[in-house]
Amino acid sequence: MPGNTFGTVFRVTTWGESHGPALGAVVDGCPPGLTLSAEDINEELAWRKSRDPRVSTSRKEPDRVEICSGVFEDRTTGTPISLLIRNRDVDSSSYDHLRDLFRPGHADYTYWHKYGIRDKRGGGRASGRETVARVAAGAVAKKVLDQHGIIVLSYTLALGGIRAQKLDFDEVYKNPLFCPDADAVPRIIERLKEVKEAGDSVGGVVEIRAQGCPAGLGEPVFAKLDAMLAAALMGIGAVKGVEIGSGFAAANMLGSENNDPLSPAGFLTNNSGGILGGISNGDEIVARVVVKPIPSIEKEQQTITENGEPVKLSVKGRHDVSAIPRIVPVCTAMVRLVLADMVLQQKAIR
Amino acid sequence: MPGNTFGTVFRVTTWGESHGPALGAVVDGCPPGLTLSAEDINEELAWRKSRDPRVSTSRKEPDRVEICSGVFEDRTTGTPISLLIRNRDVDSSSYDHLRDLFRPGHADYTYWHKYGIRDKRGGGRASGRETVARVAAGAVAKKVLDQHGIIVLSYTLALGGIRAQKLDFDEVYKNPLFCPDADAVPRIIERLKEVKEAGDSVGGVVEIRAQGCPAGLGEPVFAKLDAMLAAALMGIGAVKGVEIGSGFAAANMLGSENNDPLSPAGFLTNNSGGILGGISNGDEIVARVVVKPIPSIEKEQQTITENGEPVKLSVKGRHDVSAIPRIVPVCTAMVRLVLADMVLQQKAIR
Amino acid sequence: MPGNTFGTVFRVTTWGESHGPALGAVVDGCPPGLTLSAEDINEELAWRKSRDPRVSTSRKEPDRVEICSGVFEDRTTGTPISLLIRNRDVDSSSYDHLRDLFRPGHADYTYWHKYGIRDKRGGGRASGRETVARVAAGAVAKKVLDQHGIIVLSYTLALGGIRAQKLDFDEVYKNPLFCPDADAVPRIIERLKEVKEAGDSVGGVVEIRAQGCPAGLGEPVFAKLDAMLAAALMGIGAVKGVEIGSGFAAANMLGSENNDPLSPAGFLTNNSGGILGGISNGDEIVARVVVKPIPSIEKEQQTITENGEPVKLSVKGRHDVSAIPRIVPVCTAMVRLVLADMVLQQKAIR
Amino acid sequence: MPGNTFGTVFRVTTWGESHGPALGAVVDGCPPGLTLSAEDINEELAWRKSRDPRVSTSRKEPDRVEICSGVFEDRTTGTPISLLIRNRDVDSSSYDHLRDLFRPGHADYTYWHKYGIRDKRGGGRASGRETVARVAAGAVAKKVLDQHGIIVLSYTLALGGIRAQKLDFDEVYKNPLFCPDADAVPRIIERLKEVKEAGDSVGGVVEIRAQGCPAGLGEPVFAKLDAMLAAALMGIGAVKGVEIGSGFAAANMLGSENNDPLSPAGFLTNNSGGILGGISNGDEIVARVVVKPIPSIEKEQQTITENGEPVKLSVKGRHDVSAIPRIVPVCTAMVRLVLADMVLQQKAIR
Repeated sequence: MPGNTFGTVFRVTTWGESHGPALGAVVDGCPPGLTLSAEDINEELAWRKSRDPRVSTSRKEPDRVEICSGVFEDRTTGTPISLLIRNRDVDSSSYDHLRDLFRPGHADYTYWHKYGIRDKRGGGRASGRETVARVAAGAVAKKVLDQHGIIVLSYTLALGGIRAQKLDFDEVYKNPLFCPDADAVPRIIERLKEVKEAGDSVGGVVEIRAQGCPAGLGEPVFAKLDAMLAAALMGIGAVKGVEIGSGFAAANMLGSENNDPLSPAGFLTNNSGGILGGISNGDEIVARVVVKPIPSIEKEQQTITENGEPVKLSVKGRHDVSAIPRIVPVCTAMVRLVLADMVLQQKAIR
Repeated sequence: MPGNTFGTVFRVTTWGESHGPALGAVVDGCPPGLTLSAEDINEELAWRKSRDPRVSTSRKEPDRVEICSGVFEDRTTGTPISLLIRNRDVDSSSYDHLRDLFRPGHADYTYWHKYGIRDKRGGGRASGRETVARVAAGAVAKKVLDQHGIIVLSYTLALGGIRAQKLDFDEVYKNPLFCPDADAVPRIIERLKEVKEAGDSVGGVVEIRAQGCPAGLGEPVFAKLDAMLAAALMGIGAVKGVEIGSGFAAANMLGSENNDPLSPAGFLTNNSGGILGGISNGDEIVARVVVKPIPSIEKEQQTITENGEPVKLSVKGRHDVSAIPRIVPVCTAMVRLVLADMVLQQKAIR
Repeated sequence: MPGNTFGTVFRVTTWGESHGPALGAVVDGCPPGLTLSAEDINEELAWRKSRDPRVSTSRKEPDRVEICSGVFEDRTTGTPISLLIRNRDVDSSSYDHLRDLFRPGHADYTYWHKYGIRDKRGGGRASGRETVARVAAGAVAKKVLDQHGIIVLSYTLALGGIRAQKLDFDEVYKNPLFCPDADAVPRIIERLKEVKEAGDSVGGVVEIRAQGCPAGLGEPVFAKLDAMLAAALMGIGAVKGVEIGSGFAAANMLGSENNDPLSPAGFLTNNSGGILGGISNGDEIVARVVVKPIPSIEKEQQTITENGEPVKLSVKGRHDVSAIPRIVPVCTAMVRLVLADMVLQQKAIR
Repeated sequence: MPGNTFGTVFRVTTWGESHGPALGAVVDGCPPGLTLSAEDINEELAWRKSRDPRVSTSRKEPDRVEICSGVFEDRTTGTPISLLIRNRDVDSSSYDHLRDLFRPGHADYTYWHKYGIRDKRGGGRASGRETVARVAAGAVAKKVLDQHGIIVLSYTLALGGIRAQKLDFDEVYKNPLFCPDADAVPRIIERLKEVKEAGDSVGGVVEIRAQGCPAGLGEPVFAKLDAMLAAALMGIGAVKGVEIGSGFAAANMLGSENNDPLSPAGFLTNNSGGILGGISNGDEIVARVVVKPIPSIEKEQQTITENGEPVKLSVKGRHDVSAIPRIVPVCTAMVRLVLADMVLQQKAIR
């Protein structure tokens, strides 16, 4: 049943499998009159691509979008914007030996049980490849946010057990890890190398910030801003947790510590992560997600076939050692989708 | 704009303010033929009520639901089930001195900026009182889950910095904290007493488990089971984070540790929390939420009035020192709503 | 499954059966700050009530709404507005002999097949009584339209084969038939009397006009203004057809006759009924619905019981001879709901 | 705002403009395991194409679909099915002289007022070309209906003032007018020829029947089967009215004539058009739509430019003289979409 549409007013429907002919997104509800070109989207898609072989081993050719509708003379018309990204460099043969078994930590087992059929080429729709459509749609959402002065930034807060010790946002787009701490970068790369050599993978944490959000975004009580961010981010493959502001640390805090006092100049602290009662308070929005280790590892694992027979598995081929950093632009895209939707929703009522 | 409806097939719309005449829920899409009585719902509402003055100081009278529609001769008819809970024991006068200022950590400020108007009696719709409608609706969802052998259990995993050391589920409903570790209970109660005397409040962690879920629930890629659980739980007031399975701990794990090997007898571990690729895998579903300290504290805080003038605030009156344990049945209710919806959605496609 | 919610931004959920304790509506997405009192709604409910025994034989007591939420100090707050109307004057005993048979032309048969269970008291949710909630919600929509200068008027165009020969809108609320032709009124009443004496019922046509709509309302291609009006009106019990502008007459027209030429002063004719390409063109919106004869008649009819046995049926009791005029305010309400939703939707994009 | 998605469980999102690079549909919620090939869809697209120059003058090359996702080894997988149809034979130059004026009866004026921008090449999204995506999606819906033994048939009931005098369904696909009365065909073709020579266009009526529908489809009270059919059909460009069963004729009928008596063998008549209380009753579903004359005519018309200046217009180029017969397969497609959705919705609750 339909789970491939996201958003209420700014609404995105995505489609496509990792080894099918193409993937894409239909963006419905985009305001008319915004300038939009394929190049705007390709730029965002490029961030999703590996640029450093030490970090990830992605498909080589850049992704290129075709805008199939909704734009006339480089401006959005208000009609649905159809974005198409062809799969190139697709080689499904490396999946042949995986056809009939369930890779641990992957969705093979659950798709099989849900649908009674699964696309056995490279993970099908459960592949990380699916997120290319999210990033493309997020590039359209960015156009909406630009008009409202809202900026979303995501970065690697921790990876392989190593945590950024400082947040220098200028640094984020300068290193292949999207890490705001330049000093941590070589140490993390070293760690990734070790893990890879051990035939293993690692997890980490991505932090997302949105600046410039006006107070008032979010729709209580079930479409609160934090609830929508949680759904948007938890719905990214590999994400197993989402927190806002002080997050899980609040479990050990007192109210007097966690409350953010208000002064005439604004909130004095931001433990709320910019959200109170599910509505933005005008402060910076801060969210964090945990990214589990990539399940495809060379290390031998125990699993079963579709017939329930036990089998040993060692996944070879081009696999990243972590979904970070490639997941970072995906987090940005999803938060953009939420905020663009919320900005337009708020316009409807006031 | 409309944020008060939850679910796709099993769909709940809630309404009501803490100091208005009543609160309620309309449950649409409930299958016909289920037995349902007011007593079934009142039972669940009772769990949401304080039973121990050392722990919480709630309104005294029990909540009683009136089923206004959708049930004929004690069976659901398939038409919308309207549930009405009258507010009694309401005294808004204690809020009079708060009318024109924004309580830190509360939604006063954000509702004001969103709507330009706010119900100043006891938090209005942003009050914890709102959750009574969720629990009532959750009691209907339970009827659906009963038919499918699915059981949801929530409990206090940590409170005021003290964590349960064992999970004795039989213990949960025997103590006023819904804590699965009987030994931790007196220590936590002692801690709560201290905090209260200090005019402060504390946070904690609630864990939720669902047993008996078949593999196959969840709708990729935006309505994944974990995404819907995240939205459902993060949308509860006071919740600032949600994690599934190994959750944030996965940031420091290796793939070989975090992957759950598969044997002919099933998964050997459950780091996934019962969800792979956003679809249930037949294992137990495990989620955790962090609950922030209650923002209403007697300790003096700095804030501002609607006119932006600084003012000191000390919140007196009957306020709990933690949203736990009263939030525990709310977590159960929200997970029930998600699962009932997902069970019915899955029926539609297979 | 959920069919009891209408609208996207201005969204209404209704509930309730004809012989249950109450009926109601939850209006979600109403802009904050509108003045709204129970009296505003009661006024609209009064129009739905019979005022003339020659025309209809409705329940005697006036309907009275209770506003249970969403209004603070007589102004809407942006939170859901819950409207409750108690059923009084309910006597289900007259339905006892109908419990096990299917009344021809009624929904008894279809509810039974759909749900496997049905509320046998007076038609349950399929009763015309259900529309009281629509009219209550429509009174809230009116508040939104008032702000935009949009006025909706419905009236009886034809009844029992007699058609209004002039459209004197001032006349509509002055006669018990909501007929814009004062001269036709006594003739129609005479006709209704004859039909009633013959133990039969009659159909008719209601016309609905909306003035003051700006150009630009309607969401192509599946939520066009005419499509939403069609759904809204066809979804009223007893309505079996909807047409816009020249409607079915266009089947016999030429393009040169049916096209509305444009001059600098606007459209020269209005065959389009104010809608082109599914979007309002700024001209008056004109729709018509056909209302089938009330199926409950004293004349003996052939039918079957739930067990499939043939039986003769003569429906006695207080039944109107036509759903007109009581359906007239319901048409107004439904068009208001559509327009309020569309006005707010348009605000979101421009 | 988003109006390009149709359906709840079986959900279709369409996109594309008449002179853009392509059009398409994303079908989400299609059950897994159905056989589906491009050829299945191309066949339906072919029916939408003119086959007789006396009747219509459409683009010459056949439409060909590319299935971009959701199908693996010729079977649906349960993931979204993306359908892409390239525009070929596109020549926008003939629209150059129309760029700045509003064609009467077209959506030029309303798109301009709604969005402040419009795709000036051939009607953009308001073109009849848009329906190619509906027909493609309808071909997928047909696969769902095939499984349930439901057949949908549409045909030309009247055109240019000439009405079919008999309903010989075998005849429908044998003549270029989709007319069930072979004798009427030459007379209608003659009429079309006359009208064309006069530089004018004509309207007509299409009737749609669905056989094999089980009782129980439709979701009261706002998603009734007739309401959804009305929205689906009224939302087709050129349709100005929809009626079910006896339809507008019921205005002049008595209850005793219009009610369908029930016998142990079923309903004795079908004035209800197979729908009672908005739910299918197991009888044949019968709907009719009126199709307005094509607004593009050679005859000179009065209109204005975007700047409000008066201008005379004579539309030349390849334009059909009626949207019938090409609209006939579109009606079939829309009814299929509604029924596939309703069949799956009903599965969810029982």
